[in-house]
Amino acid sequence: MRLLSFVTRSGQAGYGAQLDEHQVAHLSALLGHRYPDLKSLIGGGLDEADAVLRLAPRLSTHEIHLLPVVPNPGKIICVGLNYEAHRLETGRPVEQHPSIFTRFAASQVAAGDPIIRPTVSTKLDYEGELAVVIGRPGRYISAEQAFEHVAGYSCYNDGSVRDWQNHSHQFTPGKNFVGTGAFGPALVTRDEVADITAQTLTTRLNGQVMQQTLISDMIFSIPQIIAYVSSFTPLEAGDVIATGTPGGVGAKRDPKVWMKPGDVVEVEITQVGLLRNPIVDEQA
Amino acid sequence: MRLLSFVTRSGQAGYGAQLDEHQVAHLSALLGHRYPDLKSLIGGGLDEADAVLRLAPRLSTHEIHLLPVVPNPGKIICVGLNYEAHRLETGRPVEQHPSIFTRFAASQVAAGDPIIRPTVSTKLDYEGELAVVIGRPGRYISAEQAFEHVAGYSCYNDGSVRDWQNHSHQFTPGKNFVGTGAFGPALVTRDEVADITAQTLTTRLNGQVMQQTLISDMIFSIPQIIAYVSSFTPLEAGDVIATGTPGGVGAKRDPKVWMKPGDVVEVEITQVGLLRNPIVDEQA
Repeated sequence: MRLLSFVTRSGQAGYGAQLDEHQVAHLSALLGHRYPDLKSLIGGGLDEADAVLRLAPRLSTHEIHLLPVVPNPGKIICVGLNYEAHRLETGRPVEQHPSIFTRFAASQVAAGDPIIRPTVSTKLDYEGELAVVIGRPGRYISAEQAFEHVAGYSCYNDGSVRDWQNHSHQFTPGKNFVGTGAFGPALVTRDEVADITAQTLTTRLNGQVMQQTLISDMIFSIPQIIAYVSSFTPLEAGDVIATGTPGGVGAKRDPKVWMKPGDVVEVEITQVGLLRNPIVDEQA
Repeated sequence: MRLLSFVTRSGQAGYGAQLDEHQVAHLSALLGHRYPDLKSLIGGGLDEADAVLRLAPRLSTHEIHLLPVVPNPGKIICVGLNYEAHRLETGRPVEQHPSIFTRFAASQVAAGDPIIRPTVSTKLDYEGELAVVIGRPGRYISAEQAFEHVAGYSCYNDGSVRDWQNHSHQFTPGKNFVGTGAFGPALVTRDEVADITAQTLTTRLNGQVMQQTLISDMIFSIPQIIAYVSSFTPLEAGDVIATGTPGGVGAKRDPKVWMKPGDVVEVEITQVGLLRNPIVDEQA
């Protein structure tokens, strides 16, 4: 299934499964009383969702406004420097463990919604990433069993305000501006992707390819990341792991490239989806 | 008021105000239908709490088991290197901006509950800190108005697993182990503390003073931190800011001092409270 979180025209939040370009099965109309949001659905209701897919009322894609795929994750865990080309362009040393920072849910925007350039900076950069969304909770998950805890995948643009990211040695400020973390469009369940590592991630700015990599080029694999993170914190349904960005970020180009109002940025992952967002200036 | 979050003997979560050494006013018994937890109470119900304080049923302190003061904060924002003596002992450079990292709520424990030394490390360290809890939401809060957004204060032990903290340049893993972030015992409302900067913070390990500082020795003041953080993320009621630890951490002593099972660690802040926790090993 290709699962979506959205608001309907009447203003009601819900979720559903994309059936084709035009139609969405309104799953929350049938299952919302038991699973109030997509986070709870992927925590235990995916089989039920599959069973009622044909019975669910249809919505036109014109009738819904997308939300970030998981609008309210308990944790958003970001992996830094997880592709060799990006590590090299940053000049950071080889590490024996994944570099982990975090985002607050308040920083997220949906596919199609604008990414916001804040008033306090012009150094807004893209970071195309594969998002892994947890389904089955766990602590001390072994790498061998890690994929059993994955509900599915989506695209993430870990939009970064570079001067604020480098105010100190900790990345948090530059990774948490309101309206900078684009997430979507759909949560593609694990069974839909034969081999996630064989997929290609591409970031385009105004149509020009800025980043491109095979997912298999990650330094720390998805199972290694899940094993590492679950050693210190319990993973819960709906938790999001943004697995790192490849080489080609704007800050390391010559000349540097910053996103500005009017630009359109896209993160596309084969078999997962296309996340497209325009850039706007924050309203003062 | 000195506000507490707790579970009663019947297993019900609630909140109240400490009246004296033995008695607690059970505020959630009267206000729980409107303010389900302490986070929502401090977001808008403090005046009502004050008004019903005398009418609220009494609980004996023996009838309750404390929870972390705010068990479910939307954000836990930690400031690194915010006292000069600690910055010097870590050998980190002077920064023009606060160093910010984060904790997940899953890492918190209450006053009196054990801090957990994880199976994967023996390098468990204390960090006594003043916690500032947000009451009134805001973005781009000015330093001049910052205190109006503060609901109150508590003690925090930002327990740190030092080897995992230094696995990479990002602190997240070592700051997020389950059972390492002690928070309590009470949220002391702002009106109860005449001048928070005049208070003394002391950390004791098995009765021996390990850290001691005046709150006024902070490098970045409480208003400066609130102004900085609210520039990138909206602050909400119940958000917690752990404002940094002074010099004297175990990792920078000669010989190094690590907390081990059987130890008792205390963080005391004058006019705010005494946070005491024993150390135990994680159960395999």
